[in-house]
Amino acid sequence: MAVDPRFFASAGPLRLGDLLAAAGGRCEGDPERRFTGVAPLQAAGPDEVSFLDNRKYLPELAETRAGAVVLQPDLAGQVPTGTLAIAAPAPYLGFARIAALFHPAPGPVPGIHPTAVIAPDATVGEGCEIGPYVVIGAGARIGQDCILYPHAVVGPGVELGDGCRLHPHSSISHAVAGRGVVLHPGARIGQEGFGFAPTPEGRFETMPQLGRVILGDFAEIGANSCVDRGSQGDTVIGPGSRLDNLVQIGHNVRTGRGCIIVGQAGIAGSTVLEDFVQVAAQAGVAGHLRVGAGARIGAQAGVMNDVPGKSDVIGSPAMPVRDFWRAVAKFRKSGGKNEGKAG
Amino acid sequence: MAVDPRFFASAGPLRLGDLLAAAGGRCEGDPERRFTGVAPLQAAGPDEVSFLDNRKYLPELAETRAGAVVLQPDLAGQVPTGTLAIAAPAPYLGFARIAALFHPAPGPVPGIHPTAVIAPDATVGEGCEIGPYVVIGAGARIGQDCILYPHAVVGPGVELGDGCRLHPHSSISHAVAGRGVVLHPGARIGQEGFGFAPTPEGRFETMPQLGRVILGDFAEIGANSCVDRGSQGDTVIGPGSRLDNLVQIGHNVRTGRGCIIVGQAGIAGSTVLEDFVQVAAQAGVAGHLRVGAGARIGAQAGVMNDVPGKSDVIGSPAMPVRDFWRAVAKFRKSGGKNEGKAG
Amino acid sequence: MAVDPRFFASAGPLRLGDLLAAAGGRCEGDPERRFTGVAPLQAAGPDEVSFLDNRKYLPELAETRAGAVVLQPDLAGQVPTGTLAIAAPAPYLGFARIAALFHPAPGPVPGIHPTAVIAPDATVGEGCEIGPYVVIGAGARIGQDCILYPHAVVGPGVELGDGCRLHPHSSISHAVAGRGVVLHPGARIGQEGFGFAPTPEGRFETMPQLGRVILGDFAEIGANSCVDRGSQGDTVIGPGSRLDNLVQIGHNVRTGRGCIIVGQAGIAGSTVLEDFVQVAAQAGVAGHLRVGAGARIGAQAGVMNDVPGKSDVIGSPAMPVRDFWRAVAKFRKSGGKNEGKAG
Repeated sequence: MAVDPRFFASAGPLRLGDLLAAAGGRCEGDPERRFTGVAPLQAAGPDEVSFLDNRKYLPELAETRAGAVVLQPDLAGQVPTGTLAIAAPAPYLGFARIAALFHPAPGPVPGIHPTAVIAPDATVGEGCEIGPYVVIGAGARIGQDCILYPHAVVGPGVELGDGCRLHPHSSISHAVAGRGVVLHPGARIGQEGFGFAPTPEGRFETMPQLGRVILGDFAEIGANSCVDRGSQGDTVIGPGSRLDNLVQIGHNVRTGRGCIIVGQAGIAGSTVLEDFVQVAAQAGVAGHLRVGAGARIGAQAGVMNDVPGKSDVIGSPAMPVRDFWRAVAKFRKSGGKNEGKAG
Repeated sequence: MAVDPRFFASAGPLRLGDLLAAAGGRCEGDPERRFTGVAPLQAAGPDEVSFLDNRKYLPELAETRAGAVVLQPDLAGQVPTGTLAIAAPAPYLGFARIAALFHPAPGPVPGIHPTAVIAPDATVGEGCEIGPYVVIGAGARIGQDCILYPHAVVGPGVELGDGCRLHPHSSISHAVAGRGVVLHPGARIGQEGFGFAPTPEGRFETMPQLGRVILGDFAEIGANSCVDRGSQGDTVIGPGSRLDNLVQIGHNVRTGRGCIIVGQAGIAGSTVLEDFVQVAAQAGVAGHLRVGAGARIGAQAGVMNDVPGKSDVIGSPAMPVRDFWRAVAKFRKSGGKNEGKAG
Repeated sequence: MAVDPRFFASAGPLRLGDLLAAAGGRCEGDPERRFTGVAPLQAAGPDEVSFLDNRKYLPELAETRAGAVVLQPDLAGQVPTGTLAIAAPAPYLGFARIAALFHPAPGPVPGIHPTAVIAPDATVGEGCEIGPYVVIGAGARIGQDCILYPHAVVGPGVELGDGCRLHPHSSISHAVAGRGVVLHPGARIGQEGFGFAPTPEGRFETMPQLGRVILGDFAEIGANSCVDRGSQGDTVIGPGSRLDNLVQIGHNVRTGRGCIIVGQAGIAGSTVLEDFVQVAAQAGVAGHLRVGAGARIGAQAGVMNDVPGKSDVIGSPAMPVRDFWRAVAKFRKSGGKNEGKAG
């Protein structure tokens, strides 16, 4: 059993022809053949579909008992006897679409739980599922077909587009979200940024944080991640950008379209990430910087200067990837037992 | 529109004379002139007040259409025609106070939401706002004029001073908090510290964590940050200290007055930060150390030894800032293409 | 007063004989003598028990007024006059057991708060305490003697063994937990992992995350830590493993028995930690790696390759501890003022 039916409903069995249409793939099998689900190469049985995206796993392809495998067209000849090759130019995407056919993400079960506390002047669109103990503040506007899972809190005035998902214990205030935005459990959107002025007496006074958070269409914010609202002007997460868990986004940060920020990374205040920037796990980007489109920032990097578009940097402080690895090789060598003795 | 009225009520328009009194600034304009709000230099119009704190932005000052700008006295001559200069010795602080005049932080709307679950022997001071689904445990004592936002949870016996703010989904147990303490959304105060003893059989037994958390007056704890209670004795966050988001404070840590700990930094158990220590983003301080008053720990630093007062350290492991940058310059150079070839 | 009675009930006074039995220790005192509680060496009075585990604190032992001190047998002669030595081969463990005798962890007060929302087909075992605003989803099964603190959310189908503790605002979905599992406040278990496929148009489509989280018996997950469910197959936290606060565990990670992962560390997807691995604070382990049994990964390390069992690594990228410190010594020296001038 690859997928636990307690947690994931199945739409299977499904026709091969429908799977091919979803995957954008080609296959010589009978389009009427039925498959029951998906599974990894090692676990899949003859009624299941698997995939190969990384040539590293070719040995597992040779051993698989899967009924069909989605893979690059040039690998189609390498499936074992009894397994169908589904040739697709983008096998990972194709497999994602097949998996989503078998196990579609649960849609809203329309209705408002009697324990939800919704301000009288808030509006909730048609088709929404509003769970137990959800709180929706004054003047908030929730689009259609949203799911607000138990204990989600939406602050006064917040606007959510259609098809948003707010998972348990997520909170959002001072924010405007587009369509299809997802807040994973415990995500924090719109709280006060970290801004204050020292007084001559050695105290700190809060700088009023008067901006908002703008979440673009289909932006996703990971579990327990934090996006502070702008101090003046807005913090912006661009359309389709995805943040993993425990990510920190300071006030007035602006990300472009399709940025990826992996777990425990942080972006300090007022920094701009242009489109399709990737920030790997535990990396940090200092404030008031610009990271060019398509740049990639390595794991645990510490970025203290602007980063040109399409470049790869890593290290703390960050430097170009190639230089970093050369320098690391020497650093490592300098730690060897005999290093320096000859000199 | 600089400030979205859905999220921030305005007390404007306000008299210039009142703004000057708040900012501690001087200005040659008519004290009866009215302003409507605040905005950044680039966005402000003739009825709005802006500020300049960093000379880097002098070009934007030259272009501003702001009605008035708060700045250092020696820069007063550089405002463009039609803009008033508000000369203040501490312009950032002055501007913070002007902004707070226009948009004061919302005070409590006294009352207890009918869904709040408050233990019969808990006490709630006058003037408090207790939101939906707040839970207050047995024997807890809440001061006057506090706001407990929806879903805040206060454990048994906890004491909060006057004027505290507990944002949504924050939790506090085993703790005593002073006046004006702020817990941002999802902050975790007083949970069990990470202490256990291995058994001969290879299991771990929890060391009972029998201390508390003491939060000094006006301490602020960022979103999803964690402050564990002491194992024996207390974990202490000193008066006026501010923690950003996703910060970790281990058991028995003690910070002095006015410490600043930036996002995703962590302080391990039993370490002491004296007054006005600054710990930058993603830095870590090992356990059982002492960091002297006024020391500054750089971003991503890894502190493994005591740090003298007023010193600046950075790097992992941490070293004095100047030495670090010299060493980094050589490290970087060693990664250059031609490095080492000539030898 | 060492322990605040508002937060910790006391079972004392207790007989020395019972303390010795718990600690597995030997002592020449009268077994009928009574003690009132525990305290650190500096604070303990003549009716209290303290301990010494680290020879660094021998000077404090000489000054203590404690009635009794748990310590290694070879140190028994060093207690001051008037203090009893409790000689135990594992003093820290012995003291933990004595402290737990005085202040046992609170057990469940059986009952279901009227505000709890429990699906009709969910089952709750005997002796459970279900707090205010707890939500338990369809088909979930809660074992006996569990405590679900206020605002805990258990998703549909989740299974919890006997004696679990879910602290405030923790959430768990798509998961099966063994006996005695503890989720500290705000812990996030079972949310969707970070997996998606890029489309030719530059969007991302979610790869359905169809696995679960398996939490072994007595696993503990720290405050605001996150454990994503598997993409296919399961994410596994082995029996007795303990995660500190703000830890990130990616999808399909598998830890063995008794692993320790300290605050703000992160383990990327599909990596395997064998038994008794220790990962120190703020360290990161890249995806698809294997860390051998008993290996120790230092604070802020960045592990990018497999780690052999029982080895010690540190640094980013990680290297053997000894080599690292030699290399760091040279790096530091290279930052000295005179370094390089002579050349």
